Amino acid sequence: MTAVTTAWKSVDVEPVSDSTLARLHGWWRAANYLSVGQIYLLDNPLLRTPLAREDVKPRLLGHWGTTPGLNFLYAHLNRAIKERSQSTVYVTGPGHGGPGLVANAYLDGTYSETYSDVTADTEGLRRLFRQFSFPGGIPSHVAPETPGSIHEGGELGYALSHAYGAAFDNPDLLVAAVVGDGEAETGPLATSWHSNKFVNRTQDGVVLPILHLNGYKIANPTVLDRIPKDELRSLMVGYGHEPYFFEATEETDLAQAHREFAELLDTVLNQIAEIKARPADDDTPVRWPMIVFRTPKGWTGPAYIDGKKTTGSWRAHQVPLANARDTPEHLQVLADWLASYGADELFDADGRLDPTIAELAPEGDLRMSANPHTNGGLLLKDLRLPDFRKYAVDVPAPGATIAESTRVLGSWLTDVVRLNPDNFRIFGPDETASNRLQGVYDATDKQWNAEYVGPEVDEHLARVGRVMEMLSEHQCQGWLEGYLLTGRHGLFNCYEAFIHIVDSMLNQHAKWLKVTNHIPWRRPIASLNYLLSSHVWRQDHNGFSHQDPGFIDHVMNKRAEIVRVYLPPDANTLLSTYDHCLRSRQYVNVVVAGKQPSPNFLTMDEAVAHCTRGLGIWEWAGSEVLGEEPDVVVATCGDVPTLEGLAAVDLLRKSVPELKIRFVNVVDLMRLQDEREHPHGLSNAEFDMLFTRDKPVIFAYHGYPWLIHRLTYRRANNENLHVRGYKEEGTTTTPFDMVMLNDLDRYHLVIDVIDRVPSLQASYATLRQQMVDDRLAAREYTRTHGDDIPVVRDWVWPAAHGATFGAVGATESTGGDNE
Amino acid sequence: MTAVTTAWKSVDVEPVSDSTLARLHGWWRAANYLSVGQIYLLDNPLLRTPLAREDVKPRLLGHWGTTPGLNFLYAHLNRAIKERSQSTVYVTGPGHGGPGLVANAYLDGTYSETYSDVTADTEGLRRLFRQFSFPGGIPSHVAPETPGSIHEGGELGYALSHAYGAAFDNPDLLVAAVVGDGEAETGPLATSWHSNKFVNRTQDGVVLPILHLNGYKIANPTVLDRIPKDELRSLMVGYGHEPYFFEATEETDLAQAHREFAELLDTVLNQIAEIKARPADDDTPVRWPMIVFRTPKGWTGPAYIDGKKTTGSWRAHQVPLANARDTPEHLQVLADWLASYGADELFDADGRLDPTIAELAPEGDLRMSANPHTNGGLLLKDLRLPDFRKYAVDVPAPGATIAESTRVLGSWLTDVVRLNPDNFRIFGPDETASNRLQGVYDATDKQWNAEYVGPEVDEHLARVGRVMEMLSEHQCQGWLEGYLLTGRHGLFNCYEAFIHIVDSMLNQHAKWLKVTNHIPWRRPIASLNYLLSSHVWRQDHNGFSHQDPGFIDHVMNKRAEIVRVYLPPDANTLLSTYDHCLRSRQYVNVVVAGKQPSPNFLTMDEAVAHCTRGLGIWEWAGSEVLGEEPDVVVATCGDVPTLEGLAAVDLLRKSVPELKIRFVNVVDLMRLQDEREHPHGLSNAEFDMLFTRDKPVIFAYHGYPWLIHRLTYRRANNENLHVRGYKEEGTTTTPFDMVMLNDLDRYHLVIDVIDRVPSLQASYATLRQQMVDDRLAAREYTRTHGDDIPVVRDWVWPAAHGATFGAVGATESTGGDNE
Repeated sequence: MTAVTTAWKSVDVEPVSDSTLARLHGWWRAANYLSVGQIYLLDNPLLRTPLAREDVKPRLLGHWGTTPGLNFLYAHLNRAIKERSQSTVYVTGPGHGGPGLVANAYLDGTYSETYSDVTADTEGLRRLFRQFSFPGGIPSHVAPETPGSIHEGGELGYALSHAYGAAFDNPDLLVAAVVGDGEAETGPLATSWHSNKFVNRTQDGVVLPILHLNGYKIANPTVLDRIPKDELRSLMVGYGHEPYFFEATEETDLAQAHREFAELLDTVLNQIAEIKARPADDDTPVRWPMIVFRTPKGWTGPAYIDGKKTTGSWRAHQVPLANARDTPEHLQVLADWLASYGADELFDADGRLDPTIAELAPEGDLRMSANPHTNGGLLLKDLRLPDFRKYAVDVPAPGATIAESTRVLGSWLTDVVRLNPDNFRIFGPDETASNRLQGVYDATDKQWNAEYVGPEVDEHLARVGRVMEMLSEHQCQGWLEGYLLTGRHGLFNCYEAFIHIVDSMLNQHAKWLKVTNHIPWRRPIASLNYLLSSHVWRQDHNGFSHQDPGFIDHVMNKRAEIVRVYLPPDANTLLSTYDHCLRSRQYVNVVVAGKQPSPNFLTMDEAVAHCTRGLGIWEWAGSEVLGEEPDVVVATCGDVPTLEGLAAVDLLRKSVPELKIRFVNVVDLMRLQDEREHPHGLSNAEFDMLFTRDKPVIFAYHGYPWLIHRLTYRRANNENLHVRGYKEEGTTTTPFDMVMLNDLDRYHLVIDVIDRVPSLQASYATLRQQMVDDRLAAREYTRTHGDDIPVVRDWVWPAAHGATFGAVGATESTGGDNE
Repeated sequence: MTAVTTAWKSVDVEPVSDSTLARLHGWWRAANYLSVGQIYLLDNPLLRTPLAREDVKPRLLGHWGTTPGLNFLYAHLNRAIKERSQSTVYVTGPGHGGPGLVANAYLDGTYSETYSDVTADTEGLRRLFRQFSFPGGIPSHVAPETPGSIHEGGELGYALSHAYGAAFDNPDLLVAAVVGDGEAETGPLATSWHSNKFVNRTQDGVVLPILHLNGYKIANPTVLDRIPKDELRSLMVGYGHEPYFFEATEETDLAQAHREFAELLDTVLNQIAEIKARPADDDTPVRWPMIVFRTPKGWTGPAYIDGKKTTGSWRAHQVPLANARDTPEHLQVLADWLASYGADELFDADGRLDPTIAELAPEGDLRMSANPHTNGGLLLKDLRLPDFRKYAVDVPAPGATIAESTRVLGSWLTDVVRLNPDNFRIFGPDETASNRLQGVYDATDKQWNAEYVGPEVDEHLARVGRVMEMLSEHQCQGWLEGYLLTGRHGLFNCYEAFIHIVDSMLNQHAKWLKVTNHIPWRRPIASLNYLLSSHVWRQDHNGFSHQDPGFIDHVMNKRAEIVRVYLPPDANTLLSTYDHCLRSRQYVNVVVAGKQPSPNFLTMDEAVAHCTRGLGIWEWAGSEVLGEEPDVVVATCGDVPTLEGLAAVDLLRKSVPELKIRFVNVVDLMRLQDEREHPHGLSNAEFDMLFTRDKPVIFAYHGYPWLIHRLTYRRANNENLHVRGYKEEGTTTTPFDMVMLNDLDRYHLVIDVIDRVPSLQASYATLRQQMVDDRLAAREYTRTHGDDIPVVRDWVWPAAHGATFGAVGATESTGGDNE
């Protein structure tokens, strides 16, 4: 590997030499030829014989429209990188740019180095063409299989978020981010321009946005292409950029286009170098340059097909010749199109690229396809994690102390920040303090490079800081993804209800992880860690519209090898869980934890043991008799359900002393699944040991109740499982009213037990009625006083029930690692 | 009701009179007083006795920061509306604007008319205050309970999308859309400014965006407040607007502020009137005005609390005095704050608003809180629907003809468009033609009011049209929601994988519908109809990243009373289903249907009968013997699973003639649920009749398989249910390879049957092996030829199996209504 030389060099802007021009144009023609070849050709890659019908793929799948523009930019960046030794990542925003990026990686040699069967010869070309959008081959996007990619572009709108995520804490890195004018219409992209207020000139790298304005989407013009040029300029100025315009039409002389763009690119890169060269303490507002790259869609393709305008129109978006095999005329259009690139001049008889053209590319890791930042696992360093046990809350007896779990986590994260000053960041949409992680501001600030008015109101804002807050969940997720994909660590804290905003981003990232798990050269990256707080049960300021625990359900649809969901019931279990998450790789870890004062149940040793198992019996809570089957299992998952479940057991123990109750708590939701479904899953034998094969199980769960059924429908005791959870009831009210409205409250759980344990139904009608009355009284009190009844609000586990944590904590700790 | 007079009047811009000024300021003070009262006061609403600790709510929940600005704007709009008789809707973008909008609705009388217990007197004030953010009361947002609201503002970012949706086809309506500078950072809001390129000057109403730039979010400054004013101006110009700036600080003289804003508002409304007055054929580009309203956060609140800057800072966001009851000093701050509004001058001894102040409000329906457009059901007219039976495809025998289902639907929609020229629109992110609905362009165009270059490329674009396409699912959903909420009809067509982009918007809309179902004065509105095509099995150009059928799962978490999911297996069932959806009210209807050529199975009569039941036995497909239990049930849901299921049955019928197979198809997914869980649910007896109590059921399902288990886990035959569906495998490949990679293919279904019917396991080992071999051969063929094997690709149901549709079609049709 060639070492990456960092630079931010300025060069003299002067006309490119004829030889450079020839290389640029040669490279572009070669990349375009290879792109068209990938879309259409099954065989005969260099057309050594006249193009025949059988040479054309039977199903033409792929996208041409954006590709020549991407190739043009790639060629020119190659020249500049080589001249400046500037480490550069290429982010391909437009969807379906795959053929272009694959072509460029092939031309610079990376592709053959990565995939030894795709050799730099005619047979390699044949394979390169054949595999594209072909069964068993590669997709049309800049997928994980593509060397140099951190961004698929397949779902639209977070090219710039990813680019900025890559730039954070990489002060010497240039990220050339090509933005499609289609994706520019998406919400996430539209707001991501404002990322430039968050990037710091000295701490971070530079993002160069290049708006690829080719004018059309699938079947429509694009908005940004159909507003006056002055308006577009204003928009970019309004976004805080200094825009540079490059414009070429189908009539533009191509040599002239190369000359002009090369000069423009040098001007822009020099401007970036000038900004980077300012003194470190220079706080002059920065206006980063960006480029508007207005070129014809499908540039260099057939101008008309069947008499219809194709190049420079939406008809060039996908496969312009949808049926190249169907008529001799269409076949001829394709043959002429391919011939127009003059492949004979570009590749020798063996299919090797002309060496003078090949010289355009930089060498080694300076090739954008080989930049190590795009295979972030290569650069990943373990976090230095302080011993989370030292941040434990004191738990002399279960429920004897109170803590805000996320605040406790924040004290540990504060030291995580201190120990990892350049590869760990916390992302959140203006909610980090609201989620009670504000302890981290003892160690760092929120990074903010827009205007600053003074310390009276601008608390914890600084030019450089480890906390990134913008009121856009899309941005937080996109920045974090970009940061992780380039080999760093972080977490995203968010209100539970709003995390659905990034459902489709989660999809894409989880799919990326799944695919990279099976690509040997892709090195594992740090997990994507969520901390969902202000959760459905305790987001007191907010009403019905803020209630939704369904992100867990969404995540569970992704592959078991990727996703993990944890619901630690108290502060110490949260610490243990999060330590595990920050050590893990290639997962999506969803952790749901409350921020409100709540009882602590487990000492740190117990917490570690419990988290290591992922679920277990809390013997101190139950009333079962060792060696006998319990009469009923009360199971809980989530902090509020655990509180209510314990309170229910307390009521039962007092009123029905003979009842043998087993209390089970679940931290790691995946443990409920079958071991064949998920690597964390319990065997049936283990499950039956915990939940019995035939006793009623009353399960108090944090989210939508049917998820528990989905996870357990094949278990022997499925039909005795009765789940309470959120069922879309409640609004702004007291915490207890919330659980009551959803039948998750302690009184209702007692009723559930009575109703399901046959022996109780006759003898405890009075107790049952008492529970019904207590519920109504609680509701009445709440509606009159606007508060919970004190006995509910201030409830703690009675020490009399047994203050010590029994056999459950007795096994060896494995360091809080639940794997 | 006072009739709404339409206007677009111009008035002379002149200084407001002193009496008007007094009314404006009086109204504003009253609205602010009522807002503070709602947040803090449990009792003593007019402070007739000195404020006591017990008068203050024990739990202070609510948001003050945005409220005074909202109240200021409301007061000024009242004046202008009255003067111009201009029908106006107020859209409150900032979250938690509830206290302000409730206060204004109370002041103009609407609130007491709507809620007769909240009277216009002291007792009414007490109730008004008490109910806010109180158990059993109303939320902090501009919730459905708030008269005049179509937009909760509780989840952030679609104020402008909703506003434009309301404006479409309401040429005389002004929509004043207040945009919070927090929500302005979200993606959906950032792109929604571009809606102005889609609204038409003559066909549609006018949206007046008012950027409420109060500078702070929960704990941070806002981006748009911390960029130079020129940059903000450029941004708004870049968005296509003419910005007007209003700026007030804490030092601004309030009378002067009223004077200036009144003048500015008149100038802006005159400019709108001038634009509206241009000749109908004037195609000059329109630059609509917008207002930047820069005012202090928490304006008129306490400047400092506990020595910390409060008004004009993020500390004013929520409840500035978080513990007003805790110390005498804090109580005094609240008392002084409340006193500052001079409630004695605003309300008489009985608590009635001073009549001269009350005169500020317009009358009847011109009051923004009473505008009928904000209770869209009042204005809703049934669609005129052509008889969908006339668009039926011919089905001489099952599988004998081929159609693209969505194209057939498009032919019917074409006439729906023709018959409903002013209250029906089709929304889609650049995919309407891709989803094969392009037939509608025979009747209409895509509405496009940006630049137009000519017919050679701008096909089907026009200044006015029924199809709305922008490459933002957020915009499509937001526009459609706004259109529906104001009493019109429409549908959203989208690629299945990308619909997750609007997961959280769906949440909010479904929750809105749920709440309005229980608000008597809210009239039912048309359902939100999705058409998801380019679905997971047949989106051939796209790879793994485009595959996700999980929107169904997401929707299923919402209340059963709201959500409906249909998977019609062919063209005629799709027609019948969609006719039903467009007739329905208050639902979210999700319809998943393919666009690729696919066999038709049911004649229209059969389709209507089948859709009416929602699921049923296809006797022609199975081989069961009347009066005997089948050996196995093959069930399918979704078009591709149905094709594979039928092909599997065909293989079985040929190879295992003695096997008694029942074939069940499910159109209405909710039928699988228990009747106690969903109004469409089957009783256990019905379910057992169809699926037996103990025979193997092989279920081929369109989406994630565990959803079927979740729906059926309580059914008697649950443990014999074996579901195949999408399990996150596949990428760009052939259609058959996709089903094969996910074990949903015909061969695998046959193997599933053999493995689960005990009598077959021994005797049909050869057949089983043949299936294994056939799968491998198909895969090999696919990977070699890039195409499906012809027998798979061109498969049709063999007529020999029985071409007629038996007893299943014999019941009475109920007109395709599956309710």
